[in-house]
Amino acid sequence: MAVYTDVSGEDVDGFLAQYALGEALSCVGIAEGIENSNFALTTTSGPFILTLYERRVSVADLPYFLGLMEHLAAVGVPCPTPVAGRDGRPLRQLNDRTAAIFTFLPGMWPRRIEPDHCAEIGEALARLHLAGADFDQARVNGLGVEDWRPILEETGQAVDELRPGLYDDVRRALDALDVDWPKSLPIGAIHADLFPDNVFFRSGRVSGIIDFYFACTDAFAYDVAICLNAWCFEKDLSFNITKARRLLNGYGRVREFSAAERDALPTLARGAAMRFLVTRLFDWFNTPEHALVTPKDPLEYWDRFRFHATVDEPGAYGLD
Amino acid sequence: MAVYTDVSGEDVDGFLAQYALGEALSCVGIAEGIENSNFALTTTSGPFILTLYERRVSVADLPYFLGLMEHLAAVGVPCPTPVAGRDGRPLRQLNDRTAAIFTFLPGMWPRRIEPDHCAEIGEALARLHLAGADFDQARVNGLGVEDWRPILEETGQAVDELRPGLYDDVRRALDALDVDWPKSLPIGAIHADLFPDNVFFRSGRVSGIIDFYFACTDAFAYDVAICLNAWCFEKDLSFNITKARRLLNGYGRVREFSAAERDALPTLARGAAMRFLVTRLFDWFNTPEHALVTPKDPLEYWDRFRFHATVDEPGAYGLD
Repeated sequence: MAVYTDVSGEDVDGFLAQYALGEALSCVGIAEGIENSNFALTTTSGPFILTLYERRVSVADLPYFLGLMEHLAAVGVPCPTPVAGRDGRPLRQLNDRTAAIFTFLPGMWPRRIEPDHCAEIGEALARLHLAGADFDQARVNGLGVEDWRPILEETGQAVDELRPGLYDDVRRALDALDVDWPKSLPIGAIHADLFPDNVFFRSGRVSGIIDFYFACTDAFAYDVAICLNAWCFEKDLSFNITKARRLLNGYGRVREFSAAERDALPTLARGAAMRFLVTRLFDWFNTPEHALVTPKDPLEYWDRFRFHATVDEPGAYGLD
Repeated sequence: MAVYTDVSGEDVDGFLAQYALGEALSCVGIAEGIENSNFALTTTSGPFILTLYERRVSVADLPYFLGLMEHLAAVGVPCPTPVAGRDGRPLRQLNDRTAAIFTFLPGMWPRRIEPDHCAEIGEALARLHLAGADFDQARVNGLGVEDWRPILEETGQAVDELRPGLYDDVRRALDALDVDWPKSLPIGAIHADLFPDNVFFRSGRVSGIIDFYFACTDAFAYDVAICLNAWCFEKDLSFNITKARRLLNGYGRVREFSAAERDALPTLARGAAMRFLVTRLFDWFNTPEHALVTPKDPLEYWDRFRFHATVDEPGAYGLD
């Protein structure tokens, strides 16, 4: 829960003067989100979200992220649309941060995941992938397979404090991933962070997909593998094959998996678990003691990795 | 910044079914507030605030607080109005908490206090006092003059860690307050916590007064004295007599001070500083290390107390 940069009434009035959105009625910091400062902004034109970008988002990447959201929203993917100012641009400065206003999306993220949610998110993800096909910008995945080892090495042997032998186990897992990682799967714009708190539902349907700040050009099936990790494990870290089956078959109804994608799924799922394992390990050992955000338990992703390491064919995920 | 109790979409839907407010569109935790969990709730009927009461608010006091807000709102004081459910009642249970829905108020609290704000808040406070005159409920001030010593004693000699000799200095100050405290000033419903973050402004006028969870029956002039402490000191803790003059004369334009109230102002101001000093001292030594809310510096209120201790007549506050 975090608002890193505060915004005063004068700040909001001055900022809104650069838009044709009427006058500010209210601007309240939102407790959710861990990367940026977000505010529920209500103007005489209605509700919006005001985002101030904090240090973890590279300003150079913002045109890609906002361009993608605009592109997807235009073809019906329910994602926030950046609102352009009177100058035609969506990005400007506010309190020494780059900032933007977005359309408001109804719905709430699901606190308890049901199989129906998984079917819906599978379909929505496939639609997102198809909708992004003619998006003309590209962005390298900054947290791709070749980035995990340097992140582990920077975190260092200290990870053994969490579990003896973890550092060497993860290194060996990275060695195997380097060998197994598929190189020629269909790629395009992927969300790359589609966790439940980034998806709003209303009346059982996906009503909003938010937080595109890890989006990049990478394998579609890798995005699916991230969702397998994010949506299909229970709190006790047991794998729920019913949820996985609904998710994969929901996806497949909208965009068919190629044979290569199906075969790669276990490796991609290991890689997705590894991606969150190494960044959580890094955050665990590099978050200041009094930070606004408490780091999340990295070992949850080591458990997920170990599950995927036992899977040698996509049928184990329930794929028909 | 805190949301202590989370609320899911299913929770909100079930809760809203007990009201005639339409369907939920969105419910987002608000980063502000330190006592309760607050959500920006948007329904098909418009924006509302959903509050879940946490342990620091006594459920037995809620009918007083909500009754007062309802009473004040009905006579034009811009404060949240509790919304009654289909059963005619504003209070019910949600996730093991007592909860209520309130009307949404436009405006933002001022981050930088200008003398104009002080004139406005003086007037608004006097209007609140007059509007509460015919409110028929009473509540003893749980943080009144006789409560400060037990709070100090429970905190204990440890306060000397903050400043050597502080415990004895505060005890002596309490001795003097016991002697000097005025006993027969005009009383009524007071807010008792009217800090800048509890007051919304819009276009330079007070558009909302919130957070009535310290409201009680006590001397009107004591409420004014709390505002002198809350609104009229600069960040470096110097007293700004221009702000105090504007505040007091704003108040006086709406409700005239009696001679006894004027004379008591320095003592009341010392008492108001003492009230926040002792509770901040208590919180400083009794807040768990990983609490969501960081305790505020108590010594700011010792500095304020020492300023008021040098004041022997109300003219020093700029009262005409």
